Amino acid sequence: MSQRASLSSRLGRAMPILDWGRSYTRDTLTSDMVAAVIVTIMLIPQSLAYALLAGLPPEMGLYASILPLMAYAIFGTSRALSVGPVAVASLMTAAAVGNLALQGTAEYIAAAIVLAFLSGLILLVMGVLRLGFLANFLSHPVIAGFITASGILIAASQMKHILGVQASGHNLIEILHALVIQIPNFSLWTLLIGGGSMAFLFWVRKGLKPALLSLGLAPRLADILAKAGPVAAVAVTTGVVALFGLNEAGVAIVGEVPSGLPPLTVPQFDADVWSSLFVSALLISVIGFVESVSVAQTLAAKRRQRIVPDQELIGLGASNIASAISGGYPVTGGFSRSVVNFDAGAETPAAGAFTAIGIAVAALFLTPLIFFLPKATLAATIVVAVLSLVDLSILKRTWIYSRADFTAVAATIVLTLGFGVEIGVLTGVILSIALHLYKTSRPHIAEVGLVPGTEHFRNILRHKVLTDPRVLTIRIDESLYFANARYLEDYVLDRVVGDNALRHVIIMCSAVNEIDMSALESLEAINHRLDSMGIRLHLSEVKGPVMDRLQRSDFLEDLTGKVFLSQHGAVEEVVALCDTPTEAAQATAAQ
Amino acid sequence: MSQRASLSSRLGRAMPILDWGRSYTRDTLTSDMVAAVIVTIMLIPQSLAYALLAGLPPEMGLYASILPLMAYAIFGTSRALSVGPVAVASLMTAAAVGNLALQGTAEYIAAAIVLAFLSGLILLVMGVLRLGFLANFLSHPVIAGFITASGILIAASQMKHILGVQASGHNLIEILHALVIQIPNFSLWTLLIGGGSMAFLFWVRKGLKPALLSLGLAPRLADILAKAGPVAAVAVTTGVVALFGLNEAGVAIVGEVPSGLPPLTVPQFDADVWSSLFVSALLISVIGFVESVSVAQTLAAKRRQRIVPDQELIGLGASNIASAISGGYPVTGGFSRSVVNFDAGAETPAAGAFTAIGIAVAALFLTPLIFFLPKATLAATIVVAVLSLVDLSILKRTWIYSRADFTAVAATIVLTLGFGVEIGVLTGVILSIALHLYKTSRPHIAEVGLVPGTEHFRNILRHKVLTDPRVLTIRIDESLYFANARYLEDYVLDRVVGDNALRHVIIMCSAVNEIDMSALESLEAINHRLDSMGIRLHLSEVKGPVMDRLQRSDFLEDLTGKVFLSQHGAVEEVVALCDTPTEAAQATAAQ
Repeated sequence: MSQRASLSSRLGRAMPILDWGRSYTRDTLTSDMVAAVIVTIMLIPQSLAYALLAGLPPEMGLYASILPLMAYAIFGTSRALSVGPVAVASLMTAAAVGNLALQGTAEYIAAAIVLAFLSGLILLVMGVLRLGFLANFLSHPVIAGFITASGILIAASQMKHILGVQASGHNLIEILHALVIQIPNFSLWTLLIGGGSMAFLFWVRKGLKPALLSLGLAPRLADILAKAGPVAAVAVTTGVVALFGLNEAGVAIVGEVPSGLPPLTVPQFDADVWSSLFVSALLISVIGFVESVSVAQTLAAKRRQRIVPDQELIGLGASNIASAISGGYPVTGGFSRSVVNFDAGAETPAAGAFTAIGIAVAALFLTPLIFFLPKATLAATIVVAVLSLVDLSILKRTWIYSRADFTAVAATIVLTLGFGVEIGVLTGVILSIALHLYKTSRPHIAEVGLVPGTEHFRNILRHKVLTDPRVLTIRIDESLYFANARYLEDYVLDRVVGDNALRHVIIMCSAVNEIDMSALESLEAINHRLDSMGIRLHLSEVKGPVMDRLQRSDFLEDLTGKVFLSQHGAVEEVVALCDTPTEAAQATAAQ
Repeated sequence: MSQRASLSSRLGRAMPILDWGRSYTRDTLTSDMVAAVIVTIMLIPQSLAYALLAGLPPEMGLYASILPLMAYAIFGTSRALSVGPVAVASLMTAAAVGNLALQGTAEYIAAAIVLAFLSGLILLVMGVLRLGFLANFLSHPVIAGFITASGILIAASQMKHILGVQASGHNLIEILHALVIQIPNFSLWTLLIGGGSMAFLFWVRKGLKPALLSLGLAPRLADILAKAGPVAAVAVTTGVVALFGLNEAGVAIVGEVPSGLPPLTVPQFDADVWSSLFVSALLISVIGFVESVSVAQTLAAKRRQRIVPDQELIGLGASNIASAISGGYPVTGGFSRSVVNFDAGAETPAAGAFTAIGIAVAALFLTPLIFFLPKATLAATIVVAVLSLVDLSILKRTWIYSRADFTAVAATIVLTLGFGVEIGVLTGVILSIALHLYKTSRPHIAEVGLVPGTEHFRNILRHKVLTDPRVLTIRIDESLYFANARYLEDYVLDRVVGDNALRHVIIMCSAVNEIDMSALESLEAINHRLDSMGIRLHLSEVKGPVMDRLQRSDFLEDLTGKVFLSQHGAVEEVVALCDTPTEAAQATAAQ
């Protein structure tokens, strides 16, 4: 985009709706509305269930699925992303807010709203300052490990609803311990409903689609019907409970849910609450952003579209603020619902806006219908949904591929399960950064020699190569910076001490992408110390940007040797220098 | 060293004294003893002064210069390093211990001893676990900035002794503020003694050596005499105070210093004190180690000797523990005294042991002589010594060379001056790591083309090169890891979307030293998305270790294109593929 970008194109970047809105046609409208109907049906039980997971009243799940979708439709760049409550963010909300207040209290609800507001602010600020790159420090394996561990935690936390007992905890051990103690108090009717729903939903996931296909349904329709399984489970179990009055027999039900559109809420401005929720809000924001962007990118690529990560921050930020001011809690782009939206044919974010209207209608008119909805059914939909997130194969894959990645994943999983989501993910991030720094602090350094008959230089330990006892060439496979500067110094000096034949050292820099000030000082020290041993230091294959910078220092003037464009040229000239009588060599050097 | 290393050579590595002790001759003895006498003379006033700086009684400075030197002589690997109290560690001791107790109290002294013990333990553990590399995360510019700022802080903190007033603070602003308020109360005699000593010592530093040389003295003797300046200042001012009874006229004196060898002390085992001193002890240890090693390496290189950094940790650890059990405080290898030791001809660590004997004699017999020693004189020796540490040119050099390094230095200096030594150096370390990660998270990526008439590929923006609209080659100048994996994904997809002519993308990996699991997944995503656009992905010039690892994953099987040894070969083959009819190309691809 040129600097003369017009106002309208700049506005279009800030509010993508102005871009796609212009070319909106009747066909697009039809596609979007069809997708919206399908996603709405799927979202209603999901929103109620995730509110339950977050420890919030069910209507907050619905509220979080109305205005946030509208906000994303205006500011988001993905054509298919569906925003709303998701499992991991709901679990993180419960963990964060649970530290401040008891579930069921007004403070708990207020804190969840503040959390959404704070997440929204953080995302907006990150978007405006273009800090989206910060999310990159969550490595893929850490995210995979974190999501797997969260899935296990969530499934375990829902077992109490399926058994109909009271049991809670902040980590897997606490949850399992509480469950074991409470198992004798289980409620038979609840277990039948919860267990039955779970079995049904697992079958829907694995067996319904093939069955529908064998009945001759179109694959797309079969796919969509299979996604509607939770709605069927909700309808049937609600009916059963209402019919037989099982709520009197110990089956916990959703109960009265206020009808109506979301209330306008003003987040509480309490410095203590804000500061104690800040880290949680940051983690929810960043993790939600990473998940959202990866879903959005996957879907966009299928249609050769693109998303703008920094604008996504703004879209998600606006959604969370919209959630906070309409009685909702933190939202982000969900994987399963976005895929359904995409598969159902959504072409623009307008599909999200139509979905919001659908949920609003549900909030207005359908809440009396879910009075008898058993919590066990909602828990079953959560368990079945999150178990698909659990993928321990990441442990095996990283073990084979990279022990550093394995360590980070394993630590993330173990600590998330053992100490909760926040400690787990923070440790994963810090550990993966530390391991990366450790690796680069001990770079691979190879002593190289000439492969006979070529101009190539290779590791003397791996290849049969030609070397000269008077010339040592080392290739450093890493950028030179403070963490490995002294390592290089030690390596060169250890190698050189006692080697009395040596007269020239060449450092081959083809893989050196940076030389920072510390590394420059180490090179100066190496140059100086080699000089005091009568050995000259040369560099070869220094990259343009690195050379530009070296030229701004005194190093090249102090260097006892030369900088050569190619390693081959370096060795040829240096060996020739060794072969000339000393006087001549000095004369050459003085030039 | 082979696995059959004998017991004696393993012992020799753990206790270097067993190595050099074996070849000790009468000549070496003479050299070492001469050096010891010279260093002893220099060390006596320095030890007293640094104890004053640390807020400790003067005898603790002497104690810290006896057993620690013995311990280092046994376990250290440097032949010339002289261990003892140093300026920066003394300032850090004052800062750390000052948080726990008031100067002059028994708790203050006990905490300083615990600090030495804790530092010793940390250094020993780091040595045993070979964690010396951790010190590398203190970048050269951060250390330079920190030492400069510490020098300024120390000089400012000593002005109260030179003016003869009470004024203290934890940062430059507090210190200057207290001084300004107290200036009207200054003591004329103190100022005359302190100011006079300072002027004399500055002259000694700059003018005495040339004067002695012009009198015909040998340069080495002139050098050593010039280093004895502080002893002259101490002797003269002590005499003047004693003669005229200036201590009655407001000149603060050292007063009674107990005679005798160091007492055996047992560090206090108090969990609260230990945990509150831990971070300080860690910082003192690491900074002391870094300083020590760089001095030791510089001196060792001059004689083609080598030091073993991990063994140095053990040597310094033993010294600090020795200091703690003999009533001393944290010690490390000092720059100026080590240079004097080296210049005076010390050949083995035995010189340090002889110095220790010299100081012990002083502690036994000379303490009555320093009763009238004015604190102002000691402060003057500190000010003159530390001002030589102040080198603001690092700001200019980093500004020219690298803005990231400049930012880290400037922050370290400003925060050390403004908030004290610990916050200053911690921020410097964290900031330099963060800036490094930031740089590598946005790697330099160049689109490259063929330089006509060669097999070289260069940046299309910098060079006139040949390209083919159907083939895109990008060269990534950075290892691929989690922090830049998504950046690469975005870069490739942004570049590719909308370019309908494109059929092949080649990623040139000559500067890619690592591909971690996150980057592998990004490459898989890129491969997959390009595939869905009908574009094939190839790699070229992948390094051996990186290729080894890729072969352990499924990536190479899923890759739609090939991995080429050379970029030139890649382009030749890919262009040929484009030129064959589609059927033929598919047949080739299927092979």
